[in-house]
Formats: sequence, C-alpha cells, structure tokens
Amino acid sequence: MQVVFQITSGESDVQLSMLGQLHNLLQQAVATQTRIAVEVVVHGHAWNLLLIDGNPLSEKVLSLQERAVKFLICRNTLNGRQLQTSQLLPLTEIVPAGIFHLISRQEQGWAYIRC
Amino acid sequence: MQVVFQITSGESDVQLSMLGQLHNLLQQAVATQTRIAVEVVVHGHAWNLLLIDGNPLSEKVLSLQERAVKFLICRNTLNGRQLQTSQLLPLTEIVPAGIFHLISRQEQGWAYIRC
Amino acid sequence: MQVVFQITSGESDVQLSMLGQLHNLLQQAVATQTRIAVEVVVHGHAWNLLLIDGNPLSEKVLSLQERAVKFLICRNTLNGRQLQTSQLLPLTEIVPAGIFHLISRQEQGWAYIRC
Repeated sequence: MQVVFQITSGESDVQLSMLGQLHNLLQQAVATQTRIAVEVVVHGHAWNLLLIDGNPLSEKVLSLQERAVKFLICRNTLNGRQLQTSQLLPLTEIVPAGIFHLISRQEQGWAYIRC
Repeated sequence: MQVVFQITSGESDVQLSMLGQLHNLLQQAVATQTRIAVEVVVHGHAWNLLLIDGNPLSEKVLSLQERAVKFLICRNTLNGRQLQTSQLLPLTEIVPAGIFHLISRQEQGWAYIRC
Repeated sequence: MQVVFQITSGESDVQLSMLGQLHNLLQQAVATQTRIAVEVVVHGHAWNLLLIDGNPLSEKVLSLQERAVKFLICRNTLNGRQLQTSQLLPLTEIVPAGIFHLISRQEQGWAYIRC
C-alpha cells in the first residue's frame, strides 16, 4: 500500500487533523499486517508544519517520521517564503515541484489523499 | 465506473453541495447507461450528515441510499465523538479507518473525489 | 503525464494559487522534458474564473490556455447560474457533468489534483 498526502493549509487544526489521520492509518496498517509507504507533500501555506522553531506540532511530525512517514516540501514553496533548509525539521526532503511529484506518484500507482 | 467520495466538513452547504453532485452523477450515469458504484466515506466533522435526529439533510441521504449510494463512517470518528450506531441512519456502514478504506479503494482501481 | 485538476472555490486567492501551481507544473514539465496533458474542471462556485468580464484572472487563464491547459466547465454549473457560453473565455469547453468527467479521467489513468 502506497499513498501520498497533500496538505496546503497553514491552520493548526487542519494540520492536527492530518497528523491524527496518519496515526490512525499506521495503526490500521499494523492491525492488518499491511506494509505501507506514506509521503506527505507540504506546500502552499502548510510550510509552518515543518519548522523547527515555534512549531507546536513538531513533536508529532518527528514521531511520524520515526515511523517512516516522509515529509516532502516543495522548492517553489521554500523559494517563495525565503525559507532555509536549516529552519526545517532535519528529515524533511525537498522536491522541485509539489504538484509534479503528486502526479508522478499517482502515475506510479500510489493512492492520493487531499487534506 | 467506481468512485469513492471523501467528506470531512460538518457545514451544511458543503454537505448539500456534495449531495447535489451525487445526484448529478447518478443522473449522468443513467443518461449514458453507465453502471456505477458509489461510496461516501464520512469522517472528521462530517458525522452529523448521518444522524437520524436533527439532521436537515437526512431525507436526501436516504434518497441516495435508495439509489445504491453507500455511506460509510469511520469507527475512529464514532469513538472520538462517542456516537452510537443507533443514532445513525440505518443503512450506514462502518469501516475501521476511513483513510485506510480510501486508499484500499484507490488500489482496487476506484476513482477518488475529495469534497 | 496526464492530470485533471478540480476547482470549486470562487475565492480569488484559491484560484490564483491554482494558476500558480499550473504554471509551476508546466515549468517543471519543460525542465524534465515531460509531455503533459492538463485539464481543469471548474464547477461549484469557481465559474467566475472563466468569465470574460470583471475577471481579474482572465489574462492568466488565457496565458495557460495558450500553453495547452484546457479549462472545462460543467453544464450543471452553467444552468444553475444561468450563464451563457458567450460570457465565458472563448476556449472554455463544456462537459455535461463535472464529477462524471473527473471520474472518467481517473478511470483512463489520469492523475487527480483537488484544489
């Protein structure tokens, strides 16, 4: 099972809801002995989810990263916000264009969930 | 044709809009003689769409259920809201985890529509 | 690479964000020498994106149309708003039912992006 999530919201209740969904998903994968690959493409206003400083959700993101959920941020988003990679949680990966990555994954057979 | 809808909003205009889309979809399926299977995964804040009491949209949901649209609610949502199945419209089905179901359906080749 | 976008919002910041995503996507397709087909299904409140008059985003839409992005509007939306095709940007195409089209495209293997 392979799935890519898309989040664009900077609001913490939307972000918290997604983190809860990821947690539930991993629980269900364990319960059903399903191998699962999960990526989260973060773009638009959602970049604050991946900040090291002043991010109330960073612990939850780190905990999901430890459980093999990959968080990807779009280079266009980084450039538009003048963010440095040093400001981002260490395991964050960078993709050149978020939408392009979402399409590529779907073409590779991954499921898509829009947050 | 097989499609799974996802709704997370508790706002009645969003829910009404989805019910209208489902109606239009079924009309178009009839017009083009297309066999179609439709599921709606209800989670997050959208649980009120499936209540028996105090739900202004219940008649429309029932009418769609009669036309073979399946409405599924997530057990995590039920537990989080302390809802009993007796409070839900009778044909409502329960899935262990809404996101997991949405991914499974896509892996089975179903289309996905995010409301 | 084939992708269908869905937009239902009438808010200009959501619309502008989508147009930016389309621009970035086309840039990335050029950079990676990827052939790409892109359709945008406009329904719900998003019809104002395709108006000729009083539409601050019309130039951007026209520019994307020149780069082969197709904008499709749903006949149900036209009828519901009593819009005439003469009010719409000339290259706009009409589909009988937006959701039906989104499902058909996914069944044909197109990726789906919800705005």
